[in-house]
Amino acid sequence: MPEPDAGGVRSVQRAVELLALYDAEHPSRTVRELVDATGLAKTTVVRLVHTLERCGLLWSRSDGRTVPGPGLLRWAELARTTWQLPESALALLKELSVVSGGEAVHLYVLQQGARVCVARHEGTRTLRHVVRVGEEMPLWSGASSHVLLSRAERADVEAVAAAAPHEDWPRVLWERAQRAAVNGWSVSHGEREAGVSGVAAPVFDRAGRVAAAIALGGPTARFTEQAVAAFSGPLVEAARALTALDCVGGASH
Amino acid sequence: MPEPDAGGVRSVQRAVELLALYDAEHPSRTVRELVDATGLAKTTVVRLVHTLERCGLLWSRSDGRTVPGPGLLRWAELARTTWQLPESALALLKELSVVSGGEAVHLYVLQQGARVCVARHEGTRTLRHVVRVGEEMPLWSGASSHVLLSRAERADVEAVAAAAPHEDWPRVLWERAQRAAVNGWSVSHGEREAGVSGVAAPVFDRAGRVAAAIALGGPTARFTEQAVAAFSGPLVEAARALTALDCVGGASH
Repeated sequence: MPEPDAGGVRSVQRAVELLALYDAEHPSRTVRELVDATGLAKTTVVRLVHTLERCGLLWSRSDGRTVPGPGLLRWAELARTTWQLPESALALLKELSVVSGGEAVHLYVLQQGARVCVARHEGTRTLRHVVRVGEEMPLWSGASSHVLLSRAERADVEAVAAAAPHEDWPRVLWERAQRAAVNGWSVSHGEREAGVSGVAAPVFDRAGRVAAAIALGGPTARFTEQAVAAFSGPLVEAARALTALDCVGGASH
Repeated sequence: MPEPDAGGVRSVQRAVELLALYDAEHPSRTVRELVDATGLAKTTVVRLVHTLERCGLLWSRSDGRTVPGPGLLRWAELARTTWQLPESALALLKELSVVSGGEAVHLYVLQQGARVCVARHEGTRTLRHVVRVGEEMPLWSGASSHVLLSRAERADVEAVAAAAPHEDWPRVLWERAQRAAVNGWSVSHGEREAGVSGVAAPVFDRAGRVAAAIALGGPTARFTEQAVAAFSGPLVEAARALTALDCVGGASH
């Protein structure tokens, strides 16, 4: 027997995927563009657009193009309230960046097969690692992923690794996650993109689970063995201080 | 024959309604609370929560409570990009507030049976009219609604008015919308809440349709006939200047 609400779940996902087609490069879209981008039938897209308009998530402009709706403003406020770190936490991110000589600092949380950047301090170097708040990165790559997966079951880690374009990745990712658990931090070089490195440490919640990963990111040329060794101390310290603040996901309110 | 995707549309609406239960007073929710607030079956709520988690719109904290998810951060950025007014437009809102002696200025757009505040300049008076960006107000009330409905069909205005707790409102709202069309602005006293008044004027889009309403709002005691007459000139002027900037809903990009 088919799952009775399967269609409903799919509709929500489709609606979210449709909204995800709007970004800085595509602030507005026509139905035609949405059809082309999704591969869905025009009638399906029109119905979805209509539903999203009714919910305030899309808005039709007079030029016939649709834009993200004013209903998102309310959610924007919600997201800000929930994920905005207190000043004391932001100061820790900044301090870590300064100590590292100006590398970028990012805070990631796990979100269903991905890690999402929820806060950052942009570095000051000309060549810098830039991930925007709200941006998703693959969970099969990077020191932050090792850390976020460091308490996960082997089967789950292997399932995540299956998405990677690397050979033998289920074994490699599991080993790196395990090492992160033992060492209390992790390092990665070019796992997702050649020339990009990262060092990450876990931020825990009150229940002792990994709530987030704090990471320094930059070009591999600057993340030498010596530099990584120098970064790891202040990084783990910052992670501990963030754990003490208990502020990820609005935990303190 | 039933509409084949009816369940899908309902699911999206339910998902949006569930998310709408999170606000400044309820930054986190348990499944129990969601069941109580929606009246839906627990299995339905659990399935919806799971779907929203998968989409990144909800996030489970270690204390068992759910919070708005990190996926909303991306949408927050989208909403900001689309609805953030340019400096020149914000300056117009501020100037209008100053000219009015410190009353609050709000910009509303129509959204499926409601008007949503998309920008504001908070007044400086101790007793002030506060509507937050993203907040929805009923379309059957207020000077802004008269203006937003000033080009609508009579049947549509009457359908909106049916939601009002006032007698004879279909006729009254239609007349006020018509007067707003003729005068180019409108005034309201206590239509939604006793003691609250507003004066509003239309902002048009390139196609000559009403894109938004700009409004001065405050206590009825300060919105005397004389004050309203004094407000109307600068208000209509500000509305015209906003029309010239063509910036509602990211129209200029």
